[in-house]
Amino acid sequence: MSIKQGKQTFLTERGPSVRAFASLGSKKEAQGPMASCFDILNPDSTFGQDSWEKAESRMVTIVAQKALEKAALSPADIDCVFAGDLLNQCMGSTFGLRDMGIPLLGIYGACSTMSEGLLLASLLVDAGTVRHAMALTSSHFCTAERQYRFPLEYGSVRPPSSQWTATAAGAVILEDGTQPPYVRAVTIGTIQDKGVTDQNNMGAAMAPAAASTLAQFFSDTGRTPEEFDIIATGDLGLVGSRLFLELLLAQGIDIKSRHNDCGLMIYDRTKQDVHSGGSGCGCSASVLCSFFLPALREGKMKNLLFMATGALHSLTAVQQKESIPGIAHLIWLSGKKGGADV
Amino acid sequence: MSIKQGKQTFLTERGPSVRAFASLGSKKEAQGPMASCFDILNPDSTFGQDSWEKAESRMVTIVAQKALEKAALSPADIDCVFAGDLLNQCMGSTFGLRDMGIPLLGIYGACSTMSEGLLLASLLVDAGTVRHAMALTSSHFCTAERQYRFPLEYGSVRPPSSQWTATAAGAVILEDGTQPPYVRAVTIGTIQDKGVTDQNNMGAAMAPAAASTLAQFFSDTGRTPEEFDIIATGDLGLVGSRLFLELLLAQGIDIKSRHNDCGLMIYDRTKQDVHSGGSGCGCSASVLCSFFLPALREGKMKNLLFMATGALHSLTAVQQKESIPGIAHLIWLSGKKGGADV
Repeated sequence: MSIKQGKQTFLTERGPSVRAFASLGSKKEAQGPMASCFDILNPDSTFGQDSWEKAESRMVTIVAQKALEKAALSPADIDCVFAGDLLNQCMGSTFGLRDMGIPLLGIYGACSTMSEGLLLASLLVDAGTVRHAMALTSSHFCTAERQYRFPLEYGSVRPPSSQWTATAAGAVILEDGTQPPYVRAVTIGTIQDKGVTDQNNMGAAMAPAAASTLAQFFSDTGRTPEEFDIIATGDLGLVGSRLFLELLLAQGIDIKSRHNDCGLMIYDRTKQDVHSGGSGCGCSASVLCSFFLPALREGKMKNLLFMATGALHSLTAVQQKESIPGIAHLIWLSGKKGGADV
Repeated sequence: MSIKQGKQTFLTERGPSVRAFASLGSKKEAQGPMASCFDILNPDSTFGQDSWEKAESRMVTIVAQKALEKAALSPADIDCVFAGDLLNQCMGSTFGLRDMGIPLLGIYGACSTMSEGLLLASLLVDAGTVRHAMALTSSHFCTAERQYRFPLEYGSVRPPSSQWTATAAGAVILEDGTQPPYVRAVTIGTIQDKGVTDQNNMGAAMAPAAASTLAQFFSDTGRTPEEFDIIATGDLGLVGSRLFLELLLAQGIDIKSRHNDCGLMIYDRTKQDVHSGGSGCGCSASVLCSFFLPALREGKMKNLLFMATGALHSLTAVQQKESIPGIAHLIWLSGKKGGADV
């Protein structure tokens, strides 16, 4: 089982192993720098469905099936799946997983969903409670945009701080196995809210949560940034990333040389019209499953801190003049197995 | 750690103990048969706030504080809280817990949330991973009604199968302790969807999921209904309960003499205008925390199967002619500690 260290961090004992993973994207992702890394790229963002929401559900089904195929497992082999998405009532996950018969534990962490799912799956696999657990999430530009902002047909002008919700999904299957990478530690985040009310600046709303969780991980474990090849945030984008680095520097933590943001990796901001960068649950999930996990498996990267970052943004709350709280959970992925004292 | 038995059930080893619990209701709950059992009853359903959503968040804060007070613990003692609610983006939980600083793992299971939270908390406590975990949920008639159905001012006529969303909340703190009741087993549910599309008949949408999870528990464990004092469903109401019993009878499982439904317990259908009964995450959570847990602690009841039932209902999905999938998770609460072979 995992051992709690400090206030919010758990070090794994057996080191849950990533058995398989799958990533899926659509047209814009196919035009981005990560294109060659994706398992599935379908330029038709309807995925053959007659609504955007059904398209997102279809993406969930496809990416879950792909992960199972790569793991050589059937749905019946999965003890539980942790899944959620940005849509009201997490309908992407619900309808996408409906026919698969896998015991479902629905989660809601906005764009932090992949970290949250991996965190829970890791703790249960590390305890020996479950044998195979899946963590899965998705996002779709068209479903998110019309639910959270404006009708797509409205064609609103987007400010520079806005981000582009990735039409993408990722799924990871964890087990008590011997195949790298392994989950070495997880840090559960707390809600951070600095009063940001601009729903076109999600990066700023999430940056304090990312900084808080990362600083807590270092404080809890005594580790230093230098021990990690990359410290990857989920989807802070350009504006949020700058703020994140500033907030950490103010605490004496300099990670500039090691930081990257999935929202800045998935698209080429100089060529693609994505303003501050990519966002959405599927952004960090697909970059994890297309780029980071393969690099860790092949030994090209040894230690990664992965922090999907969630803006707990509610349209109703913003209309009621509330701010946008953020949360971030951290996963330490490593080429080496864990053990509390390694 | 918990041991998997059969397809979806986990038997606890150490038997996570319920350290403390708290329940909160409002005006309609104060007029119902459970009134004397609640910790807090506030007839002002605004809870002093200027919006219904802020009222629900306030309920979350109050019930969490009450559970901590009864446990003689501070927020810093809680390793993690599993929380969610019916509002888009689970804003009841987010804003209610925002200032408490407890590591948050957001969950979404609609009205199955209390079971899901207890299930996850139980598995982590039983594994020894966390010391204290909280499971918490809420619902508010006015927030649910206007989000899922009609503006409150519209005063729509409600059909007989409709249910009344409880303005209520419940919180439970689990630990590896010696105070009854204990969680003896949990069963993770799978999505069940029989094609119900009537959003005024949630009971029918959820009944198949409740029947599936309960039948799976009996099949997984070899236990029989006679071993349990009460088999409590979350909020099937009158219509859903009848269907639930029929579905089980068709499989040769007769639980009629032992079944009760929190949605039928929280209000008096003969005197209160609640049609098919109560519903909402807070319905089963508050009946659990006001009636069942005290009865188990005092030894008046020995074994309870608690199954909060969730309709994974999405307004968008219904508008797109989709059906309403259901899910139910099961918790076996007992006056005696567990152990896989007890």
